[in-house]
Amino acid sequence: MSIRIGIFGYGNLGRGVESAIRQNKDMELVAVFTRRDPAGVQLKTEGVPVYSADKAPEMADKIDVMILCGGSATDLPVQTPEMVKYFNVIDSFDTHAKIPEHFEAVDNAAKSSGKVGIISVGWDPGMFSLNRLYANAILVDGKDYTFWGKGVSQGHSDAIRRVEGVADGKQYTIPVESALEAVRSGSNPELTTREKHTRECFVVAKEGADKARIEEEIKSMPNYFSDYDTTVHFISQKELNEKHSGIPHGGFVIRSGKTGFNAENNHIIEYSLKLDSNPEFTSSVLVAYARAAYRMSKDGDSGCKTVFDVAPAYLSAKTGAELRKELL
Amino acid sequence: MSIRIGIFGYGNLGRGVESAIRQNKDMELVAVFTRRDPAGVQLKTEGVPVYSADKAPEMADKIDVMILCGGSATDLPVQTPEMVKYFNVIDSFDTHAKIPEHFEAVDNAAKSSGKVGIISVGWDPGMFSLNRLYANAILVDGKDYTFWGKGVSQGHSDAIRRVEGVADGKQYTIPVESALEAVRSGSNPELTTREKHTRECFVVAKEGADKARIEEEIKSMPNYFSDYDTTVHFISQKELNEKHSGIPHGGFVIRSGKTGFNAENNHIIEYSLKLDSNPEFTSSVLVAYARAAYRMSKDGDSGCKTVFDVAPAYLSAKTGAELRKELL
Repeated sequence: MSIRIGIFGYGNLGRGVESAIRQNKDMELVAVFTRRDPAGVQLKTEGVPVYSADKAPEMADKIDVMILCGGSATDLPVQTPEMVKYFNVIDSFDTHAKIPEHFEAVDNAAKSSGKVGIISVGWDPGMFSLNRLYANAILVDGKDYTFWGKGVSQGHSDAIRRVEGVADGKQYTIPVESALEAVRSGSNPELTTREKHTRECFVVAKEGADKARIEEEIKSMPNYFSDYDTTVHFISQKELNEKHSGIPHGGFVIRSGKTGFNAENNHIIEYSLKLDSNPEFTSSVLVAYARAAYRMSKDGDSGCKTVFDVAPAYLSAKTGAELRKELL
Repeated sequence: MSIRIGIFGYGNLGRGVESAIRQNKDMELVAVFTRRDPAGVQLKTEGVPVYSADKAPEMADKIDVMILCGGSATDLPVQTPEMVKYFNVIDSFDTHAKIPEHFEAVDNAAKSSGKVGIISVGWDPGMFSLNRLYANAILVDGKDYTFWGKGVSQGHSDAIRRVEGVADGKQYTIPVESALEAVRSGSNPELTTREKHTRECFVVAKEGADKARIEEEIKSMPNYFSDYDTTVHFISQKELNEKHSGIPHGGFVIRSGKTGFNAENNHIIEYSLKLDSNPEFTSSVLVAYARAAYRMSKDGDSGCKTVFDVAPAYLSAKTGAELRKELL
């Protein structure tokens, strides 16, 4: 029998989940829930119904795992604790500072309902977090580095578009290659914000706008750009659409640490991602953890979990014996 | 209270474990067991006794986890199922083809004794296996690549030293950079053995030996060298000792896979290690999994496990709340 999946929220992430489910033969998409008018939502999968979000609880016995595809700012803090009353759930809550309180809220609700809720699934938090944990557990005496990019930052692109005179824009976060190399050398450098990443902006100016003023305003924007070496390119809307419509991202998690009676040996553990589509990759991680939530629930577990609490074997469709034979 | 660790076998790996325990404040080395004469074994840690291997069962209530530091060929197939009768155990069994039968033997013994035995811990099998599993679960439609090196292969170094006229020698396995780049590009190349790795040998010839014959014999050796582009350098024993006495190793696990309704987006997941000391890094992994074995046993678990079965949080000395706050 297939694992019956529901998608709650049908934006980039929801579509990514829909697509990822097709790659997993042990899963089946049962329904999509939306806060928009369901009649206006066109899925890519034939025969799958779209329901209004408030109908979700009625589907409690028809869905094994609900994958929540809303945003971290206002959607998930409400939706995850609510939905875990009815379903095993997965979310990609990514406001790092608020994870402890989100965990508590989901844990309380999940323990009451006897369901499993896995939060903060994706790549950061998610796969990057896992690699930080493994590397820290192994190399106790060491230093962590995380670099992001090259990739599109939605928050920084939004910030550009709020500047007066800007019609459209896209921002790329780019790790500084020489900083990466310094870390890989084992020299454990202290790196400032400016030394780790640069920011590159592609901006479409409105007709007659003052480009010099726009560039200056972007580069001096506090929090977003002023601590970075920022480059601003003015291009046409046509070029922006043609060359910058993708949502690539990625990054590097590196731990450099020492072992030996005199700390004489250095070791570098590096994990990196190069993603053509940030939301589709995140969706693929969500779907793998949906399998885990289903199985952990079957095994009698309940409560809130993170990627730290999930034994890796739960993620794979293969049996333990297959995994040991093929992947160990 | 500290986790009480025993070391069974005191070679490179055993010494690495001794060193790693010093970096972990929640652990304590209780005793070392050896098949040699205990009087002839000098530890680096004061006050820790060395016992004869056959005394181990008498320490059953004084040691929480026994870390087995013997070899995979003849030691571990016997020692791990035997020791798990008395202790939670960790081993680094690395004969990939024989893992299923080793698992069965350890699982039967561990289930009878109610102990936890985690086998095949290290980096390959171990961290590389974990990364293969995670990457396969996420990128269902993709291809795996593993490269080893640059590092010393003990088996190939031994093979060199068996050639007539060779006094000493060391062999480095080196991944081919252009093959790595092809994989990282997402082109999913089919790579032959020769295209993936080269082999570099540093050989000390005996006085008057025929170097041309030695070189030819090494390069044409089946299984070990004949399928590779092999370079042979003749050097003095002094130079070998000075420049090639380390045991570095490392490697790369890469998965390249596609997502999207039309498989239009490619993703690269890469994990790599650059290790100054292969045995010390392996030891550090063993020690982290010793913590996990202790905790899983405390939680009532028993039987044989691999890295696939261990929830990551078990590896860290930090609490769940600390992990979520600091590393997620």
